[in-house]
Amino acid sequence: MHGLNYNHASISADALINAELVEAPSHGLSRLKMYCDRIKKKLINPKPKIKFKKISNSITHIDANNSIGFVAANIGIKQAIKNAKKTGIGLVGIKNSGHYGLSSYYAEQAVKNNLIVFCFTNAPPAIAPHGSKKRLFGTNPICFGTPSSTNVPFILDTSVSMINRGKIRVAAKIGKKIPKGVALDKNGKPTVDAKKALAGVQLPIGGFRGSGLAWMVDILSGVMTGGNHGGKVKDPFDDFSGPQNIGHLFITMKTNLFAKDYRSRIKKNIKIIKKLPKINGVKEILFPGQSKFARYKKNLKKDIYIPKTIKLEIEKLLN
Amino acid sequence: MHGLNYNHASISADALINAELVEAPSHGLSRLKMYCDRIKKKLINPKPKIKFKKISNSITHIDANNSIGFVAANIGIKQAIKNAKKTGIGLVGIKNSGHYGLSSYYAEQAVKNNLIVFCFTNAPPAIAPHGSKKRLFGTNPICFGTPSSTNVPFILDTSVSMINRGKIRVAAKIGKKIPKGVALDKNGKPTVDAKKALAGVQLPIGGFRGSGLAWMVDILSGVMTGGNHGGKVKDPFDDFSGPQNIGHLFITMKTNLFAKDYRSRIKKNIKIIKKLPKINGVKEILFPGQSKFARYKKNLKKDIYIPKTIKLEIEKLLN
Repeated sequence: MHGLNYNHASISADALINAELVEAPSHGLSRLKMYCDRIKKKLINPKPKIKFKKISNSITHIDANNSIGFVAANIGIKQAIKNAKKTGIGLVGIKNSGHYGLSSYYAEQAVKNNLIVFCFTNAPPAIAPHGSKKRLFGTNPICFGTPSSTNVPFILDTSVSMINRGKIRVAAKIGKKIPKGVALDKNGKPTVDAKKALAGVQLPIGGFRGSGLAWMVDILSGVMTGGNHGGKVKDPFDDFSGPQNIGHLFITMKTNLFAKDYRSRIKKNIKIIKKLPKINGVKEILFPGQSKFARYKKNLKKDIYIPKTIKLEIEKLLN
Repeated sequence: MHGLNYNHASISADALINAELVEAPSHGLSRLKMYCDRIKKKLINPKPKIKFKKISNSITHIDANNSIGFVAANIGIKQAIKNAKKTGIGLVGIKNSGHYGLSSYYAEQAVKNNLIVFCFTNAPPAIAPHGSKKRLFGTNPICFGTPSSTNVPFILDTSVSMINRGKIRVAAKIGKKIPKGVALDKNGKPTVDAKKALAGVQLPIGGFRGSGLAWMVDILSGVMTGGNHGGKVKDPFDDFSGPQNIGHLFITMKTNLFAKDYRSRIKKNIKIIKKLPKINGVKEILFPGQSKFARYKKNLKKDIYIPKTIKLEIEKLLN
């Protein structure tokens, strides 16, 4: 457990395995060595003293004391759920945290508590601000969740880059190419070489629109919470010069604050959209989170496939 | 004033002129005839009885009674500002409203009150949900604002389509072409013909990502507030079969809830980004809202140019 207590190790393991089960290996076991390396080098604090500051019944500020990101975010979302249950709306800002894996993991917890939720986090430099040729914003996911009136949570968990950085990392690790039009090399030329893309710049969705959304997430999760921002979040894989001090911001809301029949309204909304005429080759119109949930269900009954390079890494960690 | 009282007419005129001053004519005087037509046909209520329901000191629900959207949104943002000033966070849901023009107009008011703000609104069908060939989501803007530590508000006001629908409308009206890659005709073929694009489908930013963001905005502003959703918002120009019943959702937050030095933090954030190396031909890296503000300042001293067709429309309205 590399110095983590049982509870913290268990939260972290759960988040990592969840990433494998939803087939997001970029956020799963391929990161285990990195987390252990950072604990060893005292950049992640295995015994954090996490401080809560109650601003109001709705609003809480958390100083995670460089805990592993999973633990900080897990505590944070639980607080945001508690606040919204009490007052209708919850707002939790977290500073001195680290990479917390998939936002959807935390959003799901709020949705299971019948809440609408936003999760914001910043990340190491990957995207160039519109007009610049140097990367500065992280892929800065926007995550939004709501109960869907079924047992499948509606969870949009989208980076504002054309492709997740984790996917490029995995491609680089196992020697695969990346799609066209998602990244430039360090000289500003389009590339399908994953390693060159990592050294270069990722492209945001919709040009200035995606760049603006990345900036918004940096402000919400970094500037506002007291976390690092403006390109100061260190790359957890490459930069061991200090802790990441990532910030997260969670907003939670009761679904039925305004319309008492939220459950039937969201059911109708999804039903209408699912019934639309489909483009050729599409079997079903899916809401965000639906295919992730289907993968999770399917993979729960199967063994997890781990690439050789990552298996070797994990075996070494156990020695 | 077409039946609107002085105060409501003044709010509406101010919002329309503001759109012209920031050079967003698609949201300016080109819509005046449409608003008047809808009032005449009793689809906009010139004498609305707007009802407030206080859920808590932070949360308010507003039934706009089919008022003109400008008035509903203006009252709503003022309430959201009041709530956040009192408790740190404000949440206002509005139903039975109409097209409210530019989100930035309302976000600016919150920013001038030193608040961070989200404005969400849905809109008539324009974008096809990912996997479908029929348009259903509006261009559903995401608007985010924060004080920038200068007198220029940081305001990201971005539709989740590749191009604003209003721009396509203006292009159709004055016979201009639209850019490639932003729309399909009704047969699903790419088009640069504005009229064909209006009859077809607009493309979202980043494929499924933009489609998911549009769905999120539909849920927040429609499903949650009690407004129309799921493609039921009527096109204000073409559909006179009933009121629009658009919903809006505003979230406001004090900037310094977590970091007391927010002002210096955002100043530093913007400074770092502005100093990045620029791509060829770019004079300055601008934050969202900066060029809009510059246009506003410049145009305040100039006459507003009105295309002939729109001038004729307005002259007829005055008779």
